Amino acid sequence: MSLRPSSSASRRSFLAAGAATAAHVWVPRSVKGYNAEEVIARLAPSSPMGVGVSKWELDTPALCVDLDRFEANIAKMQAALKRNQLDSRPHAKTHKCAPIAKLQLAAGAIGICAAKVSEAEALMEQGIDKICMTTSNLAPSKIRRAMQLRRKSKDFIQAVDYEPNARDLSEAAKAAGVVADVVIDVAVGTRSGIPAGDGALALAKLVDSLPNLKLRGLLSYDGGAQHITGFATRKERTLKNIEENVRTFEAMKKAGLNTEIFSGGGTGTYNIQHLVPGFTDVQVGSYIFMDMQYLAIGGEDGDPVYRDFASSLTVMATVVNNRFPGRLTTDAGAKALTLNLPHAGVSGEPGMDYNAGSDEFGTITFTEAKKSYQMGDRLELIAPHCDPVVNEYDHIYGIRKDRVEVVWPVTARGHSQ
Amino acid sequence: MSLRPSSSASRRSFLAAGAATAAHVWVPRSVKGYNAEEVIARLAPSSPMGVGVSKWELDTPALCVDLDRFEANIAKMQAALKRNQLDSRPHAKTHKCAPIAKLQLAAGAIGICAAKVSEAEALMEQGIDKICMTTSNLAPSKIRRAMQLRRKSKDFIQAVDYEPNARDLSEAAKAAGVVADVVIDVAVGTRSGIPAGDGALALAKLVDSLPNLKLRGLLSYDGGAQHITGFATRKERTLKNIEENVRTFEAMKKAGLNTEIFSGGGTGTYNIQHLVPGFTDVQVGSYIFMDMQYLAIGGEDGDPVYRDFASSLTVMATVVNNRFPGRLTTDAGAKALTLNLPHAGVSGEPGMDYNAGSDEFGTITFTEAKKSYQMGDRLELIAPHCDPVVNEYDHIYGIRKDRVEVVWPVTARGHSQ
Repeated sequence: MSLRPSSSASRRSFLAAGAATAAHVWVPRSVKGYNAEEVIARLAPSSPMGVGVSKWELDTPALCVDLDRFEANIAKMQAALKRNQLDSRPHAKTHKCAPIAKLQLAAGAIGICAAKVSEAEALMEQGIDKICMTTSNLAPSKIRRAMQLRRKSKDFIQAVDYEPNARDLSEAAKAAGVVADVVIDVAVGTRSGIPAGDGALALAKLVDSLPNLKLRGLLSYDGGAQHITGFATRKERTLKNIEENVRTFEAMKKAGLNTEIFSGGGTGTYNIQHLVPGFTDVQVGSYIFMDMQYLAIGGEDGDPVYRDFASSLTVMATVVNNRFPGRLTTDAGAKALTLNLPHAGVSGEPGMDYNAGSDEFGTITFTEAKKSYQMGDRLELIAPHCDPVVNEYDHIYGIRKDRVEVVWPVTARGHSQ
Repeated sequence: MSLRPSSSASRRSFLAAGAATAAHVWVPRSVKGYNAEEVIARLAPSSPMGVGVSKWELDTPALCVDLDRFEANIAKMQAALKRNQLDSRPHAKTHKCAPIAKLQLAAGAIGICAAKVSEAEALMEQGIDKICMTTSNLAPSKIRRAMQLRRKSKDFIQAVDYEPNARDLSEAAKAAGVVADVVIDVAVGTRSGIPAGDGALALAKLVDSLPNLKLRGLLSYDGGAQHITGFATRKERTLKNIEENVRTFEAMKKAGLNTEIFSGGGTGTYNIQHLVPGFTDVQVGSYIFMDMQYLAIGGEDGDPVYRDFASSLTVMATVVNNRFPGRLTTDAGAKALTLNLPHAGVSGEPGMDYNAGSDEFGTITFTEAKKSYQMGDRLELIAPHCDPVVNEYDHIYGIRKDRVEVVWPVTARGHSQ
């Protein structure tokens, strides 16, 4: 049976057969304006049915995740944190994908983090109800929306880092008829959160005293530490940066405040956070995919390449120009790969430098290549930085042994509000 | 009447009233999973009805276009090209927005360019039928899809830069029952297209000879020239870079081939292209929005700021941290502004440097500011580079005198295939 059904009737029978033989295949109702039948017809114009479409045949640029690697990454992180008596609370800002969040929860994560309220809303709409919003919501409309989420789920937790905001939140919780679970966002560095110390303690006491808030503990995310190159330096700075926060945690505890949550860290420091007194869970994100940025930070064993997790996220691209010596042009530019550094890696071609600096085109320069690339040839690219790359796509192809097994929606793509 | 209708019935009556009193307000059927009523409720939780929502009250990050400036830019470009006896064929890669393409066509554009076939499909689905695909389609599925577009519209034109691809295209055109309009993409630089000279002439002859293709002329887009700083240098290099292409154009003409289209150029060279012999139309894109990149290239009058068109595209953001001296954090990071340089401009605050280097947060450093910014305050940011910034958003707020007049969908957002 061909994957190019010639009539609507044969498409329907194909779909029915597909549903019977490949229960794991999730087919988006609509992708780029196509319905499910058309998506399937487009996915695989030439491959035989039943075994899945080869990733080398996907319409490009295509965002892919290698499922074997991805699943191994989830299992490895879960086991590593458990060994260190920590929980995982993976951050959805990385994948923005409800099916992935569900897999993380099924593997033992105690909850999912969200960076923006619209992200949390999109995930909860798809059945993710254990959500910790790691960013404070300042606008009245955002506060109201967050409290609607709390009303829908008793497992919704909201970060707060500003006294008037705590009062507004308590009012909004009251209006929504809930007592809202709250964590204090205590800054590590200068980007977000209330500075550690007396102010943070006072805020925790205020939250504890407000009628419609319930203090659950504190967040202390050190975004800057995640990509420090070299494990020894990363460890030293991570532990140094969080010292003040630990003192705040201890002061909260001493004051009789609830500190059942002391959360932060990420893929770069997952094997350091257990050295922080009282720490409870790690907001790991990139470990599922890895990317060129994380590969470069180095491992605990001194390896300059960080190999704790396998890079699973790639973008399939097509060569659209081979006319100029030492150069290739592809169809994956900044809209497909972002401008993050280091450059995307070309799988299997260490001698190639990939520049995604044009919006629509990628430019490769090389002195040697393993083959002579022809117009239309495919290349597989390792994403430079997973979070913003995923945010460019409406769906992710889940690949097993080079063939499509599943298509996941990027549920909260573009939900930066 | 409040914009926060308390019941479904009052929402419906509000919508009906809205439709009657504000005919220009396009309301997306679905934005981030919300229906039209919810969108409206969320757009304006506090403002009075009828006069429009203030841009300062929008949920942030919000992508906005100032309609007065935007309309003036369209009119000015159209007049300037007409004065130089050129047509405009605006490139939709900039806005990916069918309503904007319609406004450009209504102002006199002879067609719209598209960079990717999925972009062209999305635009045609919304009624844009005069489309020139400026990139060749190499994959069989893309070729087929392009020929389906040609079947739907006699005004669809496809670029070709490779002999086997021309043959494939002719076959696909035959299969689709059409004679496809084709332009040769002749390279300026090394990024895309066939090099100027004998090879390009041979390709033009091949296209002319193939049974299901109709040669219409050539494209010669000099992407590298658009952002050359300083008008004199920009002009000199633009004219030098295209010399070989002009010779190819003349050779095509001499060989009796159709050269009715000789298209290229952009916002940086719109006032240079008429000096290219035989040139017919300019693929202007960014002029509608402008951005920090184009503002920096300098004008014909020697002004270091390029003022031919007014910057109309901004991102509204919220201050989410003011706790650290000389620093502010906002909610608009790389997912809202991209990593393009120069940095986003902070409107009205020339002393501020805006770094969108974090995925979720923007970081401002400053030595002086015009006011003391509080948590929750709004800022208006000028986009660093319009094309990829627009591609991060599902809709654009059209603003007139600081109030929302229209909400446009970014029709082909994420259509990088």
